Amino acid sequence: MRDFSANHETLSINTATVRKQWPLNRIIDECARRDIRAISPWRDQVTAVGIDRIARQLRETGIRLSGFCRGGFFPAADAAGLRAALEDNRKAIDEARQLDSPCLVLVVGSLPGALNGAPAYVDISRARAEVRDGIAATLEYAREIGMPLAIEPLHPMQAADRACINTLEQALDLCDELDPERTGMLGVAADLYHVWWDPKLEAQLMRAGADRLLAYHVCDWLTPTRDLLNDRGMMGDGVIELKKCRHWAEAAGYSGFAEVEIFSDYWWTKPGEEVLDTCIARHKTVV
Amino acid sequence: MRDFSANHETLSINTATVRKQWPLNRIIDECARRDIRAISPWRDQVTAVGIDRIARQLRETGIRLSGFCRGGFFPAADAAGLRAALEDNRKAIDEARQLDSPCLVLVVGSLPGALNGAPAYVDISRARAEVRDGIAATLEYAREIGMPLAIEPLHPMQAADRACINTLEQALDLCDELDPERTGMLGVAADLYHVWWDPKLEAQLMRAGADRLLAYHVCDWLTPTRDLLNDRGMMGDGVIELKKCRHWAEAAGYSGFAEVEIFSDYWWTKPGEEVLDTCIARHKTVV
Repeated sequence: MRDFSANHETLSINTATVRKQWPLNRIIDECARRDIRAISPWRDQVTAVGIDRIARQLRETGIRLSGFCRGGFFPAADAAGLRAALEDNRKAIDEARQLDSPCLVLVVGSLPGALNGAPAYVDISRARAEVRDGIAATLEYAREIGMPLAIEPLHPMQAADRACINTLEQALDLCDELDPERTGMLGVAADLYHVWWDPKLEAQLMRAGADRLLAYHVCDWLTPTRDLLNDRGMMGDGVIELKKCRHWAEAAGYSGFAEVEIFSDYWWTKPGEEVLDTCIARHKTVV
Repeated sequence: MRDFSANHETLSINTATVRKQWPLNRIIDECARRDIRAISPWRDQVTAVGIDRIARQLRETGIRLSGFCRGGFFPAADAAGLRAALEDNRKAIDEARQLDSPCLVLVVGSLPGALNGAPAYVDISRARAEVRDGIAATLEYAREIGMPLAIEPLHPMQAADRACINTLEQALDLCDELDPERTGMLGVAADLYHVWWDPKLEAQLMRAGADRLLAYHVCDWLTPTRDLLNDRGMMGDGVIELKKCRHWAEAAGYSGFAEVEIFSDYWWTKPGEEVLDTCIARHKTVV
């Protein structure tokens, strides 16, 4: 397993972690100042500043992407909605390409409208079929452009509204179906917050292997957890066995960044400088 | 699939559903008044009234148990704690026997102390091993007494603090290991709230079969869900495909009660009469 203690060249910051503190251009500057080598930005953060400006700033600072958030949300109430989702995913691929991302992360979606408390239908099998078809269609364009797609299984507590792919096994079954040749164009983003509980975690990381393990996200699971979305913990403050999991991922062939992604009403109230400094310190000690 | 529309003879009320409104003796009276044929009581509710009195009241009203809640919570910080848990589980089996329950439901526990925000250790594999050993030891006594144990997989969002068995597949793997002869003494409680999201749900219900499907719990998953423990929905108010799931369970051989278990800060504020009447109405229409 790689030694993270000497420096933080393997650290990436998912920019949602400090999204309430700063706009993306400031986040990039603050990362550069701390010699953070990679980020994973969200589309809305990029758009708010302007993608050309962000692309230039990334070149100037030498900061790379560990991923781009996000494509997905394929299921829809009707055919027009399904088409609009596909179009939006092609646009996301173009943006990922412009920012030279190694992959586009997919939060696949689930029952359409459920996020607003009004699901258009309640058939999760239908949502899963629409996700499958949506990824299959998007993969065609992704292959043309050369932009790998990383399916991110979300925690089962988000199965109704955000993603109906909820385990690594399920995501990898889909990879087997849609990319049986293991071309590297379809894989998974393993976010420990979503998968830490899974008794099959080690086995499925091994199954994914280097060619399908496209991203690796860390934070921590707090006890108690007070919110289903925005109560993630800083690494080391919860119960996830971070080093054990990284050992498994690296044994499976993963050699990329450890990307910190913390949605937290607590950390969003802290000065951004403190959040980034804490991420660096924890990266070197507990990740 | 059985027709539930004509009457509610297949309805059972898990007594946690109205635990804030009434003591258990009143709950039993209110169930009897509505011709509800079965309940699943919690140990603390039984103890608060007195087990002899409850046993007598059940005989007098002709109300049966669909299960008894609960044994489990096997992991502990030290050897003394592990022994105390085993002793408590034997006591739970004796109580289940006295109340003529068809099974003792196991909420198996996880990281000891996590429920109070202070886990004694964070190794979920260790917790799972302690659960395995605890069930194995408890099963010996359960066989002597003739009281089946029903492992209840809890939702992965409760993996840290309440149960480190989180899928039907994981529970059934343990059944295969500890009771390979399928004696009927070890099985599962399938609570749809915990397992509805699982892409392998149908397959694992089939795998369980009649001899391992010892209990079947219903409620609903709300969008949004505002609390990880006490925001369950009334059947029909959420996104769980209740009839589809019951079709699977019955195709697998299940022929017992549909037990309503709703932990809900909302429903606990309602008059108990209204809650029970609503359970009956929904049982006949959407379960």
